[in-house]
Amino acid sequence: MASPILRDAESGIVIDLHRAPIHGDASSALAALERLDAGAIANADEGRMVGHYWLRDSTRAPDAETRAQIEATLEQIRTFDPGPFRTLVQIGVGGSALGPELVHDALSVPNAPAFEVLDTVDPRAIEELLARLDPASTLVIVASKSGSTIETGIATDAVERHFERAGVSFSERAIAVTIQGSKLAERARNWKAVFPMFDWVGGRTSVCSAVGLVPMHLLGIDIDQFLAGSARMDEWNRSAAPANPAAHLALLWTHPDCRELCVMPYTNRLRHLTRYLQQLIMESLGKANTRSGATIHSGLTVFGNKGSADQHAIVQQLRDGPTGVQVHLIDVAAPDSPVVRDAADVQFALLAGTGDALSEVGRPVVGISLPEMNAFGLGSLIALYERAVGLAAELLDINAYNQPGVEAGKKAASVNLSQMQAVFDRLTSTPQTPAQLAKAVGITDTRAWRLAAHLTATGRAQTTTGKSPSEDLFCAVENSSI
Amino acid sequence: MASPILRDAESGIVIDLHRAPIHGDASSALAALERLDAGAIANADEGRMVGHYWLRDSTRAPDAETRAQIEATLEQIRTFDPGPFRTLVQIGVGGSALGPELVHDALSVPNAPAFEVLDTVDPRAIEELLARLDPASTLVIVASKSGSTIETGIATDAVERHFERAGVSFSERAIAVTIQGSKLAERARNWKAVFPMFDWVGGRTSVCSAVGLVPMHLLGIDIDQFLAGSARMDEWNRSAAPANPAAHLALLWTHPDCRELCVMPYTNRLRHLTRYLQQLIMESLGKANTRSGATIHSGLTVFGNKGSADQHAIVQQLRDGPTGVQVHLIDVAAPDSPVVRDAADVQFALLAGTGDALSEVGRPVVGISLPEMNAFGLGSLIALYERAVGLAAELLDINAYNQPGVEAGKKAASVNLSQMQAVFDRLTSTPQTPAQLAKAVGITDTRAWRLAAHLTATGRAQTTTGKSPSEDLFCAVENSSI
Repeated sequence: MASPILRDAESGIVIDLHRAPIHGDASSALAALERLDAGAIANADEGRMVGHYWLRDSTRAPDAETRAQIEATLEQIRTFDPGPFRTLVQIGVGGSALGPELVHDALSVPNAPAFEVLDTVDPRAIEELLARLDPASTLVIVASKSGSTIETGIATDAVERHFERAGVSFSERAIAVTIQGSKLAERARNWKAVFPMFDWVGGRTSVCSAVGLVPMHLLGIDIDQFLAGSARMDEWNRSAAPANPAAHLALLWTHPDCRELCVMPYTNRLRHLTRYLQQLIMESLGKANTRSGATIHSGLTVFGNKGSADQHAIVQQLRDGPTGVQVHLIDVAAPDSPVVRDAADVQFALLAGTGDALSEVGRPVVGISLPEMNAFGLGSLIALYERAVGLAAELLDINAYNQPGVEAGKKAASVNLSQMQAVFDRLTSTPQTPAQLAKAVGITDTRAWRLAAHLTATGRAQTTTGKSPSEDLFCAVENSSI
Repeated sequence: MASPILRDAESGIVIDLHRAPIHGDASSALAALERLDAGAIANADEGRMVGHYWLRDSTRAPDAETRAQIEATLEQIRTFDPGPFRTLVQIGVGGSALGPELVHDALSVPNAPAFEVLDTVDPRAIEELLARLDPASTLVIVASKSGSTIETGIATDAVERHFERAGVSFSERAIAVTIQGSKLAERARNWKAVFPMFDWVGGRTSVCSAVGLVPMHLLGIDIDQFLAGSARMDEWNRSAAPANPAAHLALLWTHPDCRELCVMPYTNRLRHLTRYLQQLIMESLGKANTRSGATIHSGLTVFGNKGSADQHAIVQQLRDGPTGVQVHLIDVAAPDSPVVRDAADVQFALLAGTGDALSEVGRPVVGISLPEMNAFGLGSLIALYERAVGLAAELLDINAYNQPGVEAGKKAASVNLSQMQAVFDRLTSTPQTPAQLAKAVGITDTRAWRLAAHLTATGRAQTTTGKSPSEDLFCAVENSSI
């Protein structure tokens, strides 16, 4: 198969594949994505359709009701009047944070509202955010597809209490994005607005749903251009190979020798791109089994920061280290500005030089060039990777849309919370070693020690420090609770 | 070898190795690092000693002159009075940016000056920075060990011109950090201050030199605590195994099955840590040959964002995807704050749950716990990784302190700049295809097209767009220059 330089006549986007030759054929995968486009149950584990492509082209929705939902939601977003605010806070994890964060960083306009993302339950980060937040000029988006994400709930509680302490109505300044009938939808009944999520959109492909579009709209970013860019890229990627860039990427990624993808955007505006792509690609392709149950342990490790910084950090290993790594060099056409022309020339030369140095030692190098850093281009770029992921999953015969490994971590976290309670309940005024607590609760010494140390740090236990952790002694703190 | 839970009595730092057992012995590597501590020429390619450990314990310097240089520099930093400023700009690439960026993000204090890092030649990023920079209240640090880093020079030129246009003296507000006698040292002769770098400190281990300490001091961060923390960790890592955490990490990393390291700090304050570690580890361990010339292609791919965000992005692949990945879970003891206690409990449970879910499928999991997020702790953490890198390089028999692959990229960039000039010189009023330009210059069609397109974007060529890139036509622009 030839490895050409592809250029989309409409957008001007260039995808340079000439240094990343492939062998193989993606036609069966393309056919599978056509079925998915038509509403097949692609996520069999959860019995769901996969419809993020419909969000940017509602004519492709499999039925009139779905199409109407998509269009009504878009209209609700376009006509939403938030009233005055200076700071926008997005509470959400995973896809409910990474997409909005990327889009804001890439496309934020001068004099736009400040944008804060609360995407963990880091207690210090929550405290620091609240300390600088003026409720009276803040608007809060709470995004959770399921509406029962534990981190999102905890963070929302903290922000709501902060509003209450300031005497500002939280419900008048809060917006929910969630699925109909969820716990969050219930909580948000009196909020300023509720925008719908759909069960046929996964978190990691939700940037074209209300999860991404609501903050975009509120930050002054052109959502119609964003959707147009991703729709255009989808069209391109429905074409037959070899002019199909997503198929080319998918064939590269699924080559048995490919293990890692380094993404280097030569523009600071895309410094969050690799973090976004880590979720999109790794959560989709990192799977233990094929759809028919065979063991596969597939995956593609995504990393990278930004060019030319990466040249001083990562390129050494890319060139001289282990094989199995592919490289994406992303750039945006340089500005026609005499003030920074020398910078533009050097940046271009560094990009090209990195490609040369890696290509000459056999690393596959893909170049992606955007004519401008705008909503159309970013929408296109994301859509390219989404489609490549879908195709790669078909080639590997895996379910790209489930995440059983994430569920395992959540379950283990829940067990840890119960164990924390159990250790707390066993604390008394008599000092106990980790081994004693462990025996009483039925857990390992190490776990008992870690839990008791956490209770001490948070003021609900007392520690007499021993020579080693196993000799620490733990007591109860009077009148404390968990 | 046992895999214990280690706790440093002085700092309270805990390194939990019980879920990352090792086989093997690091004693020869420990002996090699002792020789390096004593001033051996560890970087044979460049004929240099490797002395970043002396920066935090000058009594270990191999001679009185080196010791005096270290102490004099520290005194110069401690007593430096910058005068009033509201924004600090750090111009530098690689180690001259990543360390200061990490330290600022981890340790910045309320009401400290704003901190901006210019670590690429992205023309738009430079323009955007200049647009928000008020020269009259800005202080600029230009850090380049060699003093001839091309990106740093270009960025400094742009900032200096911005000061000139505003009628503010650049030299009165600029500080250089560079090696004596360098091009930058020459340029900075009339600047506010020049702090020395030393040829025995590598860029990726320069955070304890003036490169890191000058911005830290100016941002109100306690440099003596930072140095004390790293010195304390070095001491710990000079102890004989099995109580030597760096030796344990080095043995884990050099196991033939280990290919990737996912670092997940469960605190937003360390969100830049993995980018810092990418440089430190990948540039040091990603090598084609051993010191004796055997082919090795060693390397350790470092990635990760922050917990618990990573759980919604990366953990799926860590658990279900390819083996060969190790995980570091880093946390800081939760604050004793009733306001965010539920957040602290959930964060702890998520951390522990991730460890459980990954350990139960055989991924080695190392836990690192800091009692506080402070300068001592961050200094310790960085020193731990520095020492582990040094030991791993000894175990692999590679030079951790050179970067031949980076030089290759630089050379290729320089070739590209010459080719850009050559293409520009061939442009005339007669339209030419990429193939015609390529033939005239003696480069590939693809390269000619890319260079001509760049010249068009930057106003020094004109393009008539064809059906495909090979059919584009390029002309000169009158009165333009390169």
